[in-house]
Amino acid sequence: MKIAILPGDGIGREIVTEAVKVLKALDLSFEMEFADVGGVAYAAHGHPLPDATLKLAKQADAVLFGAVGDFQYDNLERHLRPEQAILGLRKELGLFANFRPAICYEQLTHASSLKPELVAGLDILIIRELTGDIYFGQPRGRRTASDGHFPGADEAFDTMRYARPEIERIAHVAFQAAQKRGKKLLSVDKANVLETFQFWRDVMNEVHKQYPDVTLEHMYVDNAAMQLVKAPKNIDVLVTGNMFGDILSDEAAMLTGSIGMLPSASLNAKNQGLYEPSHGSAPDIAGKGIANPLATILSAAMMLRYSLGKPEAADRIERAVKKVLASGLRTADIYSEGTRKVGTVEMGDAVVAAL
Amino acid sequence: MKIAILPGDGIGREIVTEAVKVLKALDLSFEMEFADVGGVAYAAHGHPLPDATLKLAKQADAVLFGAVGDFQYDNLERHLRPEQAILGLRKELGLFANFRPAICYEQLTHASSLKPELVAGLDILIIRELTGDIYFGQPRGRRTASDGHFPGADEAFDTMRYARPEIERIAHVAFQAAQKRGKKLLSVDKANVLETFQFWRDVMNEVHKQYPDVTLEHMYVDNAAMQLVKAPKNIDVLVTGNMFGDILSDEAAMLTGSIGMLPSASLNAKNQGLYEPSHGSAPDIAGKGIANPLATILSAAMMLRYSLGKPEAADRIERAVKKVLASGLRTADIYSEGTRKVGTVEMGDAVVAAL
Ligand SMILES: CC(C)[C@H](C(=O)O)[C@@H](O)C(=O)O
Ligand SMILES: CC(C)[C@H](C(=O)O)[C@@H](O)C(=O)O
Repeated sequence: MKIAILPGDGIGREIVTEAVKVLKALDLSFEMEFADVGGVAYAAHGHPLPDATLKLAKQADAVLFGAVGDFQYDNLERHLRPEQAILGLRKELGLFANFRPAICYEQLTHASSLKPELVAGLDILIIRELTGDIYFGQPRGRRTASDGHFPGADEAFDTMRYARPEIERIAHVAFQAAQKRGKKLLSVDKANVLETFQFWRDVMNEVHKQYPDVTLEHMYVDNAAMQLVKAPKNIDVLVTGNMFGDILSDEAAMLTGSIGMLPSASLNAKNQGLYEPSHGSAPDIAGKGIANPLATILSAAMMLRYSLGKPEAADRIERAVKKVLASGLRTADIYSEGTRKVGTVEMGDAVVAAL
Repeated sequence: MKIAILPGDGIGREIVTEAVKVLKALDLSFEMEFADVGGVAYAAHGHPLPDATLKLAKQADAVLFGAVGDFQYDNLERHLRPEQAILGLRKELGLFANFRPAICYEQLTHASSLKPELVAGLDILIIRELTGDIYFGQPRGRRTASDGHFPGADEAFDTMRYARPEIERIAHVAFQAAQKRGKKLLSVDKANVLETFQFWRDVMNEVHKQYPDVTLEHMYVDNAAMQLVKAPKNIDVLVTGNMFGDILSDEAAMLTGSIGMLPSASLNAKNQGLYEPSHGSAPDIAGKGIANPLATILSAAMMLRYSLGKPEAADRIERAVKKVLASGLRTADIYSEGTRKVGTVEMGDAVVAAL
């Protein structure tokens, strides 16, 4: 088994170091190989996703990813910016199924913007399609408009599109995830306006016939953005397209108040996966030793479960994280009075000790 | 001056009746003419936006709109569904500038899902482009894919597009709104992924040169969805495209906890406007006399200010609404212990009395 370790920019190196420490402490036999990605890769090799990095990621059974992006790369041309690395990896590895849990840990309920009774015990699984939609749809670009409100004017355009098999495969992933949880699936679309998402709804209804034990509900994306604020605990498994999933998964993550705790997994049809924290590269606190490594450590747990066939090891990590939280240790982002503030390394060490 | 009154479906008739009562009580000289729209129009005339209704709306200086949509129309073909009326009116009247305030009224702070300190005094103005983007972009439809992940498969597609003058005109509206408020404009896009929104960002920066007294910030839509939850009071005027605006304006409205209080205005280049509550047709409570008419009454105030040149009358209505709230009257949606629960008609009467 081989894991590609891509720390990236900002706090990426610090948080990935702790996750690697935890993985090593498990005493399992896998190989780990490091490579550059994002801004640091651009700086060293002229491209955010160098060929060698992509090759390694393709060969590996799983990729553990830190974060990418930093102020000094903000004005590069788009195709050289750090985020292109993550889009490139998703596309090249065919990572169509993105799992983003939004969990509110008991001890961290107070950190949410929402009133505690609305988020206590919150546990939503957002499943976002990750290789289709307007993210990758061709054609796209700039041109002179030949119709529309201002024919003859400069315009820019993108194409939203989903083919039936793309919707079917994410639907199967979502129904199967719902079967393992509350047997209730919420599909989010904008069928009242978009052809693409009327089709999405139609195909969801068709695939539903194969999962009669799961209740399927449809909701428009604007309403979903509201229900997440109003009554998030009514939602169990939510499936949606790439663009809406980008927005709703971040909204849901922020509702928990502890985005520094939230892992994510992006899988392809062969269960190869890319695992990364839900938060970003936080360049403002990079190098200070205060970043929360728990989202990355929990991403490593997801990796063990989904791509490496080691569910017991995943359980061990997750139990250890809960123990550490229960013992009162907190990084700055989740600190509150009466708990003990620790840095990145100390938090990683504590998880290892609790394994 | 002529106002087209389109009550629509669900609670539409009840809430519009109260707004009309308030308008009449002002003793100004304008003509009001009623017409069917939405599901009731489909039922009576076979189309959600009958020609006569559209003609009336075009002739009028302003449209006061209730709400559309009801369970029994959910399974109609898309082009006959109630929502098509609102899309048709936006397009035919060229209502490109949508204003949606998200205001948290002092007495209703507790009704928010968010902790009171995060929303007390909240006053965000969301400006959403309303006639472009993927809502209206051609081509769109179903076809056999000729490329992409699954060539040969059935697919559906839509086109996101913005021409330079479309972005420029909404930019001017937004910068001018910001000049009248905190001189701070947040433009929300997805420039890191979409050509359309890289162009949006470029044009925003260009137009900004004409408004050196306004600070312009850019934010990605996923981050904006988070910041609205995390620290909504940091946002003053937010401008964005049609699709992102649909999602973010609803999220922001729900943050206030009292969407039943929030009006909206949609204007064209001639300041003709359509005015409607931010909430929907709520068919589940229709006919019960318990709906909150205040969002519609406040929409009528916006109408007086923006389309009918009667800012003092608008002020009078807004002051009256505040007085009624201060006196402790509440409809069911905003009721809390220690206040007095009233129905739709009683609330309308109270506003008239407070004028
Ligand atoms: C960095 C960016 C391209 C990416 C996305 O939009 O998918 C990010 O926001 C995410 O959600 O992983
Ligand atoms: C009814 C629907 C077409 C509409 C939209 O998506 O614009 C509504 O959600 C709104 O925001 O006014």
